[in-house]
Amino acid sequence: MSNLQMIEAAAERLKGHVRRTPLLSSPFLDEIAGRRVFVKPECLQHTGSFKFRGGWSALSALEPEVRARGVIAFSSGNHAQGVAAAARGHGVAAVIIMPEDAPKLKIANTRALGAEVVLYDRATGDRDAIGKQLSEERGLTLIKPFDEPQVIAGQGTAGLEIAEQAAEEGITQADVLVCCGGGGLTSGVALALEGHAPGLRARPVEPEGFDDVKRSLSSGAIQRNDRLSGSLCDAIITPQPGDITFPIMQRLCGPGLAVTEEEALRAMVLAWMRLKIVLEPGGAVALAAALFRGDEVEGDTVIALASGGNVDAEIFAKALETYAV
Amino acid sequence: MSNLQMIEAAAERLKGHVRRTPLLSSPFLDEIAGRRVFVKPECLQHTGSFKFRGGWSALSALEPEVRARGVIAFSSGNHAQGVAAAARGHGVAAVIIMPEDAPKLKIANTRALGAEVVLYDRATGDRDAIGKQLSEERGLTLIKPFDEPQVIAGQGTAGLEIAEQAAEEGITQADVLVCCGGGGLTSGVALALEGHAPGLRARPVEPEGFDDVKRSLSSGAIQRNDRLSGSLCDAIITPQPGDITFPIMQRLCGPGLAVTEEEALRAMVLAWMRLKIVLEPGGAVALAAALFRGDEVEGDTVIALASGGNVDAEIFAKALETYAV
Repeated sequence: MSNLQMIEAAAERLKGHVRRTPLLSSPFLDEIAGRRVFVKPECLQHTGSFKFRGGWSALSALEPEVRARGVIAFSSGNHAQGVAAAARGHGVAAVIIMPEDAPKLKIANTRALGAEVVLYDRATGDRDAIGKQLSEERGLTLIKPFDEPQVIAGQGTAGLEIAEQAAEEGITQADVLVCCGGGGLTSGVALALEGHAPGLRARPVEPEGFDDVKRSLSSGAIQRNDRLSGSLCDAIITPQPGDITFPIMQRLCGPGLAVTEEEALRAMVLAWMRLKIVLEPGGAVALAAALFRGDEVEGDTVIALASGGNVDAEIFAKALETYAV
Repeated sequence: MSNLQMIEAAAERLKGHVRRTPLLSSPFLDEIAGRRVFVKPECLQHTGSFKFRGGWSALSALEPEVRARGVIAFSSGNHAQGVAAAARGHGVAAVIIMPEDAPKLKIANTRALGAEVVLYDRATGDRDAIGKQLSEERGLTLIKPFDEPQVIAGQGTAGLEIAEQAAEEGITQADVLVCCGGGGLTSGVALALEGHAPGLRARPVEPEGFDDVKRSLSSGAIQRNDRLSGSLCDAIITPQPGDITFPIMQRLCGPGLAVTEEEALRAMVLAWMRLKIVLEPGGAVALAAALFRGDEVEGDTVIALASGGNVDAEIFAKALETYAV
């Protein structure tokens, strides 16, 4: 279902709405990694993560009369904000279903982006039933976070930009490390690179203990995570790769990588110090792999896609105090 | 001496070496300011500040045989790193004269960028004498931090980008607030805007108590600061505007603005939270004025040039703990 043509079409629809994030580098990071390191900072994207790409792509692909009835999403994080901002940009309603114990700031942000937030009790509420009822009553369209072709196509536009920017830098061969949850970004980027920069190879990066995609790729069949909580890399913790994303990753991606939480926090601090960007821990795992898992990376150049920057001040301040030189 | 043609020529020389930093925005900042706010994040420039532009411009404008003998600069901060990186990019030697009590990290960074750092004792050493002797012995060319036409021309390339990016956003009228020390960046940007975006007006922003440019503009004659220490905005504290920069600012700039240190720190934290960029306090004063001094700004859109992001972790962590929501 997902292919290069869909990504190129999404790029046309996103033009003038999405930010073309730059490609950053620092000689200090090159020295740590022992090779050239480039970082694509999707934290600078609208809403602070790449999720705006997929949200806009999905919204803009809907038939106007369907879109006009509004959209719905389940998320307590970056997907919520991406869909909310994309819906506002299209002038349509967005309902976001969030657990009532989600961070207050994330709830406030999602509301401030114009979405209607419906809270449910994780212990007693049935999120899917609430969503189903609202969708039926109002004719809302569900925007899934990753296993949805138009969302994958939107995320893939980051890969088109990487292909262009790598060519501008004269890079023809490199591993492209991608922070990976359900695989929407990774599979979209992989498809874009296959078409526009065949010497670049996408590789998923996950936190240790939550490396379902890595294990799925190495075993050849979808594997699940044992647990879904207990990581500061919350943005990229998902139960398992998607039914649509996994076959794409299996066909196109190099082996997965996994990093420790401490490595992610160190990479977050180094991105603060050397690139002047703000990453969340889950958005820093690709850079962490580039910096600290160099023996698992091939070639003289590596590109890390930093997926988002929505991190709590307390966590960030503590990491600075712990890991800044 | 400085004019638009020099800026355009500098832009040609910088092509492929300088980063075209994006223009960022957030609905949350718009809401605080009560108008549209755009931020030009020069913290994302090589070496973490706009100073790389002026350094590269000055180095690249030298006659090759002069440049080959190397350059020298006096700086403990952003200019040091900008000149060091530009010299390395040209394959020539840079000597940076720094006080021996400069932050160790800044000394280490300047050395890591390939410069020879010569330390002097602020109390007993004569910085100018050391510089003069080294220059004569080795034939080094002095790169002044702001009152130098080719440095102004380089900084002005940020203004050319703002003119282009404003046009892309459909902005024809706006105040462009610029973090201002000696006026190299402000005067360069003002010249670029005069030529390429005459509806945009550059305005210097300084910390309260160190607002020599603001007072100079309002009195019509160069005014000095009473003191040069005691501000977290150290990057933009200079004794007085330059002999070259001041007449340009006088001819082209709107009135200066001044913000408190607390406003600068709050803006730094908001840039972290809403734009996912890292600013130093001195690099955040323009955004602070856009957010908190709206009654002194004209029009429905304001552009803030965020000049740099080289800040100590301790200061940053403390600001997050104090001002993050």
